[in-house]
Order: sequence, then C-alpha cells, then structure tokens
Amino acid sequence: MAIRDKTHQSYLIAPDMGRTGLTRSVSGIGQDGARHDIDVVEERPLTIYLNSREIVTAMTIGDYPEYLALGFLRNQGMLGAADTVTGIDYDEDLSVVVVRTAVQTDHEEKLKKKTRTSGCAIGTVFGDMMEGLEGLSLPATPVKTSDLYALAAHINRTPSLYLAAGAIHGTVLCQGPRPLVYMEDVGRHNAVDKIAGWMASESVSASDKTLYTTGRLTSEMVIKTALMGIPVLASRSGFTAWGVEIAQQVGLTLIGRMRGKRFMCLSGEDRLVWDADLTQVADEPRQPARKGAP
Amino acid sequence: MAIRDKTHQSYLIAPDMGRTGLTRSVSGIGQDGARHDIDVVEERPLTIYLNSREIVTAMTIGDYPEYLALGFLRNQGMLGAADTVTGIDYDEDLSVVVVRTAVQTDHEEKLKKKTRTSGCAIGTVFGDMMEGLEGLSLPATPVKTSDLYALAAHINRTPSLYLAAGAIHGTVLCQGPRPLVYMEDVGRHNAVDKIAGWMASESVSASDKTLYTTGRLTSEMVIKTALMGIPVLASRSGFTAWGVEIAQQVGLTLIGRMRGKRFMCLSGEDRLVWDADLTQVADEPRQPARKGAP
Repeated sequence: MAIRDKTHQSYLIAPDMGRTGLTRSVSGIGQDGARHDIDVVEERPLTIYLNSREIVTAMTIGDYPEYLALGFLRNQGMLGAADTVTGIDYDEDLSVVVVRTAVQTDHEEKLKKKTRTSGCAIGTVFGDMMEGLEGLSLPATPVKTSDLYALAAHINRTPSLYLAAGAIHGTVLCQGPRPLVYMEDVGRHNAVDKIAGWMASESVSASDKTLYTTGRLTSEMVIKTALMGIPVLASRSGFTAWGVEIAQQVGLTLIGRMRGKRFMCLSGEDRLVWDADLTQVADEPRQPARKGAP
Repeated sequence: MAIRDKTHQSYLIAPDMGRTGLTRSVSGIGQDGARHDIDVVEERPLTIYLNSREIVTAMTIGDYPEYLALGFLRNQGMLGAADTVTGIDYDEDLSVVVVRTAVQTDHEEKLKKKTRTSGCAIGTVFGDMMEGLEGLSLPATPVKTSDLYALAAHINRTPSLYLAAGAIHGTVLCQGPRPLVYMEDVGRHNAVDKIAGWMASESVSASDKTLYTTGRLTSEMVIKTALMGIPVLASRSGFTAWGVEIAQQVGLTLIGRMRGKRFMCLSGEDRLVWDADLTQVADEPRQPARKGAP
C-alpha cells in the first residue's frame, strides 16, 4: 500500500474515496438469490444560476459544485475569460449554485433572447459552442507516446469511484507524464466541466496539458477540450465521426481505443513524438465481444 | 453463418449493418506508427419540431428519425396517448423532423410558458418527466431468470454497430426470451426514444415487455422505461442511487451488472421467477480493473 500511496501523491486532486455522500450502499438480490449490499454512485440535481438567471439543472454526483458551475458556464461560452466572477455561492439544501459576475454578461442576455425563439436552449447552446471554435488555434505542444502510456497506466490503477461502484465517468487533466486533477461524475460532461472550473479558478495554463477521459470521443467532448485550449484528448473508448471531423478542423490531437500497447490517433498526429519502447509497455487482453457500455 | 442468420431471424428490427451512412471509414495512425483505416459511427444533429414549435436538437446516428422524434416527445410527456398524430415529416437535407398533431397540444403551450420562465427547458422537461410518474402503476408480469440469461446471450452475439465501430449504445425491446427491436445510437436516450416511437407507431403493448440496455441505469433511463409502461429494465452496466430509488418508488424491476452468470436486482425482485439452471449458463471472465467507460 505504501507504493500505491506514493504513486498517487502526484495528483493535486484525486478521487476522494473517503468522502461521504458520493456513493450509497444499496441492498439487492444477486443471481444466487441471496441478499447482497453493493455501493452505487449518487446522482442528484444541481441547478446552476448565472446571476439571477436559471441556466440549467445538471445531474451530478455532487462533489465540487462550484467548479462544475463555473466550468459549465465557461465551456458553454456563457462566461468568458474577460468576465469578472465576483463570487460563487453553493446552497446544499436547495441544490443550487449561483455564479455572480461584476456586470451582467452579454451571454446572459444572448441566452435569454435565443431561448425565447427556440423553445429549448439545448440546440442553441450547442450552436454557441461551435461558434466559439471559429479562429481557434491550439498550441503545437509535442506529446511523447511514452507519456501517454505512463498516464494510462497511472490513471488505470488510481483508486476511483469507478473502481468502487461503477456507472461513472472519469476525466483527468495531465501534464507530460503526470496526472494532475482527476474528476469523476455520472455525466462525462460534468467531469470535464469540473476540470474547466478548476482551471479557471486556479488560472492554470492549458497549452501544455493533455486531457484523458474514460468516455467516448464525441463531438461535445472534442469541442469542450478545444474551447478549454487543451491540444490533446485521449481515451480508452472509441470515436464518433463528427468528433473526429471537428478535431481535424481545429487541429486537436485525438487519440482513442487506448488499451495496453494499442491506440489509434485520428487527428493531429503531428504533435506525437514516438519515443515509447513498446516492449516495455504492458499489454492488455483484447476486450471480449461485448463489454460494458461504450 | 447460416446458424447466425437463423438466430437473428427473431428480431423485428435488428441493427442494419448493410445500411450506408451510419458509420464512416476514417484513416489514422496506430501505435505502430502505421496508417490504418477504422470505422467510426456517425453523429449528426437532428432538430425535432412539434407542429410549428422547435423542441430540441438531438445528436443521433441518423437512422429512424421519425421514431426518434415521436418517442422523444412521448417520453418527455409533450405528446400523450390521447394526442392524434396526423403526420411525421422528415427532411434529410435540413436535418429536421416535424411531428404534427390534429390540434395543438397542451404540452406545447406548457413548454412555451415554462421555457420563458426558466431559461432552459432541460430542467423543466426533467420535472415534467418526474410528474408523469405520479400514480403510475406497472403490471406485475413475472420475469423468468432463464429468459434474462437467454436475452443477454442472444443480444451479446447479435451483429451490431457497437461490435463493428464501438462508441455507441444499444437498447433492445424484448418479450420473454425473445429480443424484438434492437436500436442503437450515440446517445443511449435516443436508442430508448426510438423504441418508444416504434411502440407508439405500432401500438405495441408494454406490459409483457423487458427493456435491455448496454448503458448505465441512471434516473433518466429508469424514468423513461417506467413512462413507457415497461415493468423490467436490465443492463450489463451499473446503477446510480437515484435510478434505484425511482425504480423502487414506481415498482420497476431493475437488474444490473448482468455478465455471464452474475447479475444484481436492486428493485422489484418480486417479479423474478428463479427457473434458470446456472450450471447451463456460460460464465464470463470478471472485467479487468479498468475497462472502457461505464
């Protein structure tokens, strides 16, 4: 155990397995007909306000509501780097988090207008995210394949809610071979948004970072990563065609199906530095014909 | 191959692997530094209208847009069994599908009003879904454990987009030991909505059905299944606490972590008929410490 502890020293934020309220013990019946208790992850609504305006109700495990709210608003383009956040208030009883800015933001007004005409903000919010990609330029930071293998190995053996209770997504902000911030949530977008909120709070530079996710590389994941200014997104899971297309358009390095020695890079391969000695990388048995959900 | 074909005869709708446009071949670089072509699933926006009102833009692989639109509106409570659908028009070029009713629905007016006051429909739509659960009573249809094992074995070896390209969710409407309709989509809610749309179109009874999903048993999955009137929801994946709580409240049988001989039933165990001979069920090796995303 001492070795494991040392390994995980490197995280600034790691999954906090001792924290109460993130999982719940539930009693059920197994295939043997006997009663068993298992841990399942929590999932609770959190309503995010920007000043006096209700923006969205997200389903979340409930840790880091302030980071989630701030990161969500940043990733949706409702809050820019120029907007001064004067406070973030979380009311646990009401399940409400309010992000306050010095002056009412443009985005707030824009959202109000769009919402009136479109019936639901989902579509327009997505449009706003795409808008934010225009003219975006991601830094040409090189990425060592040895670092990617080191990250995957480190993250895969980090104690997590996923390992304890399943049914959860993890996203990890990394720098070189070092994982820095490991967030988990029932929705993979929440995990990314919490990382965005932490980065905004701590004024962390994105240009030398890699984002690692357990989830699929969909268009939304690619867009969020690019909007955060992170040039590299890697995952154990697979791709969608539109995710690949957007990554190619914005010049983001997109690596998927990363298991053992294997990976596929479908965009931004120019950043890769092929320094890994594959004979030193542990292999992983091929997945069975049908595993858990992708 | 003849055996496989015979096995899959039983489906009314199975994944159509020959259909063009659901996956795309993309060229990338593997860990060996060599170029490989792989198939990735498509993901495209589809905007759903109820009469003249724009409701939502969903990201979908693009098959069965009419079922998706109809099922989405039904599952969100925007369209009731009493509303007469006079037509569903899909415009492929515009990526728009319009569901028309004989008279403007209550729900349409309700949505407009709610949207005005809340900024985004996501939260209120969710509220509407919860409202629909009040007073809901699911039928006491017994479920044989032998049927559950037969379904899992059958579905797991059905050729699917998931097996071909990954990064996709599957949901299957089943009756006893027989899988009837197998829908896949990039979002697991879309796959369920397509099944709801098919059921509404074909006036299929829900009371003797089981829903099987590759995805996690979250609150939304449980709510949708219950609103569809289906008494049993099963999955290879895990649970969230709120999903379990809602299942218990509405008396839905919730079975998760179904792999090989193993499963866990966390709600509605009274429907289970323990007739399976476990010595006849193939086991599945325990999952590695970290598999693909849950």
